[in-house]
Amino acid sequence: MIISIRRNATREQIDEVCERIRDFGYKIHAIEGEERVVIGAVGVGDVTHCLESLEAMAQVESAVRISAPYKFVSKEFRSTRTRIRIGELEIGGDEFVMMAGPCSVESEQQIMTSAEAVAKAGAKVLRGGAFKPRTSPYDFQGMAEEGLKLLAKAREATGLKIVTEVMSDQDVALVADYADIMQVGARNMQNFALLKTLGKCGRPVLLKRGLSATIKELLMSAEYIVAHGNPDVMLCERGIRTFETITRNTCDIVAVAALNELTHLPVILDPSHATGKRSLVPALARAGVAIGADGMIVEAHPQPEKAVSDGAQSLNLTQFAQMMNDLKPYTELWKLQRGSSSAKS
Amino acid sequence: MIISIRRNATREQIDEVCERIRDFGYKIHAIEGEERVVIGAVGVGDVTHCLESLEAMAQVESAVRISAPYKFVSKEFRSTRTRIRIGELEIGGDEFVMMAGPCSVESEQQIMTSAEAVAKAGAKVLRGGAFKPRTSPYDFQGMAEEGLKLLAKAREATGLKIVTEVMSDQDVALVADYADIMQVGARNMQNFALLKTLGKCGRPVLLKRGLSATIKELLMSAEYIVAHGNPDVMLCERGIRTFETITRNTCDIVAVAALNELTHLPVILDPSHATGKRSLVPALARAGVAIGADGMIVEAHPQPEKAVSDGAQSLNLTQFAQMMNDLKPYTELWKLQRGSSSAKS
Amino acid sequence: MIISIRRNATREQIDEVCERIRDFGYKIHAIEGEERVVIGAVGVGDVTHCLESLEAMAQVESAVRISAPYKFVSKEFRSTRTRIRIGELEIGGDEFVMMAGPCSVESEQQIMTSAEAVAKAGAKVLRGGAFKPRTSPYDFQGMAEEGLKLLAKAREATGLKIVTEVMSDQDVALVADYADIMQVGARNMQNFALLKTLGKCGRPVLLKRGLSATIKELLMSAEYIVAHGNPDVMLCERGIRTFETITRNTCDIVAVAALNELTHLPVILDPSHATGKRSLVPALARAGVAIGADGMIVEAHPQPEKAVSDGAQSLNLTQFAQMMNDLKPYTELWKLQRGSSSAKS
Amino acid sequence: MIISIRRNATREQIDEVCERIRDFGYKIHAIEGEERVVIGAVGVGDVTHCLESLEAMAQVESAVRISAPYKFVSKEFRSTRTRIRIGELEIGGDEFVMMAGPCSVESEQQIMTSAEAVAKAGAKVLRGGAFKPRTSPYDFQGMAEEGLKLLAKAREATGLKIVTEVMSDQDVALVADYADIMQVGARNMQNFALLKTLGKCGRPVLLKRGLSATIKELLMSAEYIVAHGNPDVMLCERGIRTFETITRNTCDIVAVAALNELTHLPVILDPSHATGKRSLVPALARAGVAIGADGMIVEAHPQPEKAVSDGAQSLNLTQFAQMMNDLKPYTELWKLQRGSSSAKS
Repeated sequence: MIISIRRNATREQIDEVCERIRDFGYKIHAIEGEERVVIGAVGVGDVTHCLESLEAMAQVESAVRISAPYKFVSKEFRSTRTRIRIGELEIGGDEFVMMAGPCSVESEQQIMTSAEAVAKAGAKVLRGGAFKPRTSPYDFQGMAEEGLKLLAKAREATGLKIVTEVMSDQDVALVADYADIMQVGARNMQNFALLKTLGKCGRPVLLKRGLSATIKELLMSAEYIVAHGNPDVMLCERGIRTFETITRNTCDIVAVAALNELTHLPVILDPSHATGKRSLVPALARAGVAIGADGMIVEAHPQPEKAVSDGAQSLNLTQFAQMMNDLKPYTELWKLQRGSSSAKS
Repeated sequence: MIISIRRNATREQIDEVCERIRDFGYKIHAIEGEERVVIGAVGVGDVTHCLESLEAMAQVESAVRISAPYKFVSKEFRSTRTRIRIGELEIGGDEFVMMAGPCSVESEQQIMTSAEAVAKAGAKVLRGGAFKPRTSPYDFQGMAEEGLKLLAKAREATGLKIVTEVMSDQDVALVADYADIMQVGARNMQNFALLKTLGKCGRPVLLKRGLSATIKELLMSAEYIVAHGNPDVMLCERGIRTFETITRNTCDIVAVAALNELTHLPVILDPSHATGKRSLVPALARAGVAIGADGMIVEAHPQPEKAVSDGAQSLNLTQFAQMMNDLKPYTELWKLQRGSSSAKS
Repeated sequence: MIISIRRNATREQIDEVCERIRDFGYKIHAIEGEERVVIGAVGVGDVTHCLESLEAMAQVESAVRISAPYKFVSKEFRSTRTRIRIGELEIGGDEFVMMAGPCSVESEQQIMTSAEAVAKAGAKVLRGGAFKPRTSPYDFQGMAEEGLKLLAKAREATGLKIVTEVMSDQDVALVADYADIMQVGARNMQNFALLKTLGKCGRPVLLKRGLSATIKELLMSAEYIVAHGNPDVMLCERGIRTFETITRNTCDIVAVAALNELTHLPVILDPSHATGKRSLVPALARAGVAIGADGMIVEAHPQPEKAVSDGAQSLNLTQFAQMMNDLKPYTELWKLQRGSSSAKS
Repeated sequence: MIISIRRNATREQIDEVCERIRDFGYKIHAIEGEERVVIGAVGVGDVTHCLESLEAMAQVESAVRISAPYKFVSKEFRSTRTRIRIGELEIGGDEFVMMAGPCSVESEQQIMTSAEAVAKAGAKVLRGGAFKPRTSPYDFQGMAEEGLKLLAKAREATGLKIVTEVMSDQDVALVADYADIMQVGARNMQNFALLKTLGKCGRPVLLKRGLSATIKELLMSAEYIVAHGNPDVMLCERGIRTFETITRNTCDIVAVAALNELTHLPVILDPSHATGKRSLVPALARAGVAIGADGMIVEAHPQPEKAVSDGAQSLNLTQFAQMMNDLKPYTELWKLQRGSSSAKS
C-alpha cells in the first residue's frame, strides 16, 4: 500500500496514520518529500480492509494498493495454464474449442437440428439457454427444466458437451444435473450468492464479464468461485457497454491478451453478443483466434429470423459451417503459437 | 415500430417483412421514399418479440420501437405520483424523506448510536447492510440475520423504519421478516430471479440503478417487480460508471428529473455512492433536493475511519447533523415546488 | 512518484531504475517488502517525463504520480478564489452570474430580441455563436464576422457582456476584437494550438470540458492557458459522454463541487448541452445553483422551433424569464452559502 | 425521417408538424396508430436542419434520421474500395501496409536508426511526430520544422513514405511541404477548421478516431475532408475511452469490420495507443490483420526507455522486427481473403 498524506497534515495526524497501519500488522516505510509525506506499508495478506480504513481518515489524500487483490486466479499463484477437462474435451489446452448453438432452447426439433449441424461443423460444446435473463418481464423467459432435458437429449445424440446459463443460486443443483458447463451471464457476474454456490457445484463454470466490469473485477468474481472450492473457471469476454451504438456492445478484445498475462484460467470470446450483428461475427471470430483466446461461444440457429431471442446476431447453420471452414487456417496458426509459447514457459 | 428496409431489397423481400408483421397482429403502413422503403407498424401489446424477429431478417436495416417497453411504471399508465406508505411515513408524498445510517451493521453499539443520531437529526429511515455484496471474497460479508435483528432493535428504540439489502431470492423471506424496505443493490438490478421474488414479498422495494444501466433498463427492472405483484417500488440513482476516476461513480443527477417525467414512482438519490467522498456529499445532497428527488439515502457512521466498509464516503454523525441542518432551507423550497407542481397536475 | 518493481526483477534491474531516477534529479526512498520492491522518489519540478521514462522500463510494473500535474490552477498554488472582472461584472465573486442567448447568431432581429429579453430577466452575459462547430459539413457553420458584429451591437444596446466561441487559433485575434469572453468548445478542449494562443489573447476564457475529458485533463487544459500568460479562465461542465441516451450528455454535476475543492478558478454549468432537452433545463439549473457553481450558460431563443441549431434544448424567452424567477430563492441561498464559506476560508 | 408525436397532441399541433416538414420540401406519410401518430417524411438532400427544427417543437416526442448523414464516404456512394496511391505505394489495395517509427522525432540519430530498422523489417511508411499534442504544457512539445526536416532526410535515406501529425490549420502548408500523409490526432478529430484546411492540402490524410467519437462521427469528420476537396482519407481506430484502466484505451476492433461495411475508405489500426502497453501490441496486431484492417501504425523506438514520450507502448527495434516476422502468415491469409472478397464484389 502507498498512502499519500495531505499537505497540511500535522505530525500528530501522520503518526495516527502510522499507528493505524501497524494495528493491521503491516510494516511502515515513510518517505518525507519536500511537498508531502508518503507512507509505504508492506506485509502479507489482504489489505482491502486496511485500505478502506485509511481512506476514511481526513488527513489521507489517497491510499492505493500495489499488489493485486486476487490470489488463486493469478499467474503469480500458478504459472501453468489451467486445463479444464470434461471427459475427453480439454479447454485451455492444445486445441481451440468452439461452443455453438441457439440463444434459447425453443423446441426439440430446433435444438436437435442445431446440435447436429454445429457438431458436424466442428463445435465441441452446445450452447442453449433454458433460463433466460431478459430485460423485459414480457419477453420469453426460457423453457426451464424442459429445456435442460432437451439439451441432455442433444448431448446423447451428438456427443457434444452442454453449456447453459444458471440465473439463481436456487437453480444451481438443478442445472448441474444436466449441464457440463455452468454459464454465469454478464448481468450476474457480481451476483455473489450465485458465485458462492457455484464454488461447490462440481462443474466447470463459464463466467461472463459484466457490461461495465473491469478486468480486475472479472478476476475477483472468478476468485469467489475458486476460493469457494471450484478451480475450473473459464472467463468470457462478451463486449462491454460504451457510448458506441452501431454495435450492441464494444468488444474489448485486448482483454483476452491482458487476461492471458494476468491469469492461468482459460479465456473464451463471445463474438455474437460482442457485436450484436450477424455480419460482423466471422471477422471478429478470426481476430479472436488470432489474439489467442482458448475458445469461442457463438450463436447459431436453424432459422435466426424466427428465433425467440437474439436472432439478429445468430448465424444460420450454413453460415456457421462456412465460418468454421474459414477459421481453419487461423486455428492452425493458433496451434503453432500455442505450441511455441508452451515451449517457452 | 418503424422498420427500415435495406436499399437493395427486392419487392419480394419487402413483402416478406410485411407478412411477418401481420403474423404478429400489427397493422402496416408502408412509406416508399426515393431512397428506401420504411414500414410503420402499429397495434396494441408488446412488440419486443416482433422487433427481434424483424431485426434478424437480412433485408431489414433497422427496426425501432416507438412506444416505451414498460407499461405499469409509466406516467402514461398512471399520471399521479405513487405514494408509498409505511405506517405513518410516506415516500413520494409531501415531505422529503431522509434515510441514513452506516454501510454495514457492525455491532449493537454501532447501529444503536447511529440510529439515535440520525433520528435526532431528522432522518425517518435507518439504513444498514446485513448482507453485503463485496467485490472481494476476502472482504467482510455482513452479519446476516444477526445484523437484521440489530436493525429491528434499533427500529424499536427509535421508531425509524428499516431499509436493508437483500442479495438473493433465497433470502427474501428472511429479510422481509425484519425490513420495512427491501433494497436491491446496483449489482443486482438485473438479477431477474430476485426481482420476481420481490414482486411477491409484501414490502416496498428500493431499486438501485445498475452501474451501467440505462434509465430505461432501470424502469424495466421496476416493471418486473410491479408486474409480479408489488406496486411499491422506489428508484435510486447512485451514480453510474464512466471514465472519470476522481469520484467513485458519476452521479447522473439529471436522471432524477428525467424519471420524474417518465414515471410515477418515487426517486431517491444516494449521494454517498455517487461520489465516494465524504467531502462531496453535502454539496450533492443540496443539488438532489433542488432537482426534486423524493428522498435521499446517505451513509453516516459513528467512526467512519473504523468502518468495515465505505468509510471514505461516510459522514460522521456530527457531519450528518450539520448537513441536515444546512439542507433545511432547500427542503422548504422543495415543499413549495412540490405543492405548486401538484396543484398543476 | 511511486514506482512498483516487478516481482522477478534482479538487483541489477532495480539499481538501474534507481539510477534513472537520480539522473532526473529526484531523491530515492526504497521500500523492500516481502512480495516486491517499491521505490518512492521525491523532489521539486514536473515529473511527467521521468514517469514516462520509467514506465518504459521492462522491470517497472507501474509508476504513478503523487502530486497533481497542474500547478497554477490548483488550490495549493492559490487558496483564494479567482475573481474575473469584466468592467463592473465579476465572475467567481459574490453574485451568481447568468449567461444566456441563442446557440447561433442568426439575424439582427433574432439576437437583439434575445439580448433584450435575457437582460431584462437578469442575465449579465449574452451568448451566441458566430463560428459553429458542427458534426456535419452540411450544417450551418455560423455567420462569422457578421455575427460578431451583431453581438457587438447587442452589447451596445443592452450592456450585456458577450461570450462567443472561437474555433481556430487563426481566428483568436478577430474574435477578441468583439468578444468579452472567449469560449472554447468541448471538441476543442485539447486543441493545444488554440489554448496557447488564448494564453496571449487578453480576454477571459470560458473553457468547456471535453466530451470524454477527465476533470484532471480539464485542469491541464486550463493550465495551458494560464501558463501561456492568461490567468482569467473559467471552467465549464457541460455534460460528458456515457452510455445513457435519454439525455444528450450526462451532466457530471459533482465535477462542480470537485473543481471547487481542486481549483481557485470559477466554474460554470451549461444545463442546455448537459441535458439536450428543454424540459430538463430548469430542474438542472436549480441543482447547479445549489451545488455551488459560479454561474450558468443557458440557451434561450425567441423561437426555438425555428432555430438553425440546438432548438430542442433552447428555452423560449418566456420560459427563460420564468426560470430566472424560479431560481431567485436558490441564488439567495447561494449568496448565504458563499458568504459563509468565504468567511471560513 | 420518422417523427413521433406526443400522445396528447391535438390535431392542430399535428398539422403544424406536417406543415413544417413540407416547408423543408419533404413528402409526408402519416401513420395513425391506436396509441400515437407517427409521421414519415421522405425526399432527397440533407435532413439535419429539418430534424433539429422538428425536435424543437413541443408536440414532437422524437425525430430520427433513417438515412446516413454522410454521403461521399459511404459505400452507397461508391462501392469499390478507395486505393490511396503515394508513388508506388498503395493503401487500401492488395497489400497490407505497415507504418512504424517513434512517437516523437527526437534527434537525427534516433530517427535515422528507426527508419532504417523499420524499413528493413518491412514497413513502408515512417511515423514520427514533429508537433506533439501533450496533455501537459510542461511536456515536450516536439521539434517542429526541424523535426520535419529530419523526417525528410530519413525518407531520402530509406525510401519510406512519411506520416506525421498536424495540429493546427496554420501549420497545414508547412507540414504538407514535408509529409506524404497528414495525420490528424484523436484530440483534433472534430477540429473542423483543421479538417476544412486539409480538404485542400493535396496530401492523403490519416484521420484518427476521437477518444469518445462514435463510428458515425468519425465518418462525418472524414466527410468534412472529402467534401472540401480531398478524397484520400484513411480512418484510424486507436482505441476509445471507457471505464477500463488496465489498458490505456479500449480497442474497438469491431469498428474495423463495421467501417469495412459502411465505407470505401481504407482503415488503419493503431495497436500502440489502443493498448498503451508494449507487451500487448503483437497480439493485437495479429488480430488487426485477421479482422481485415488495410494497415497498421505502430510505435517503435531504438530505446523505448529513453523515449521522450510513449515509451511504455513502444516496441524496441528488435521486437518490431520479430513482430513483423510473426505477422507474415497472417498477412498471407489477409491477401487470400482480400483476393476472394474483391472477386466477389
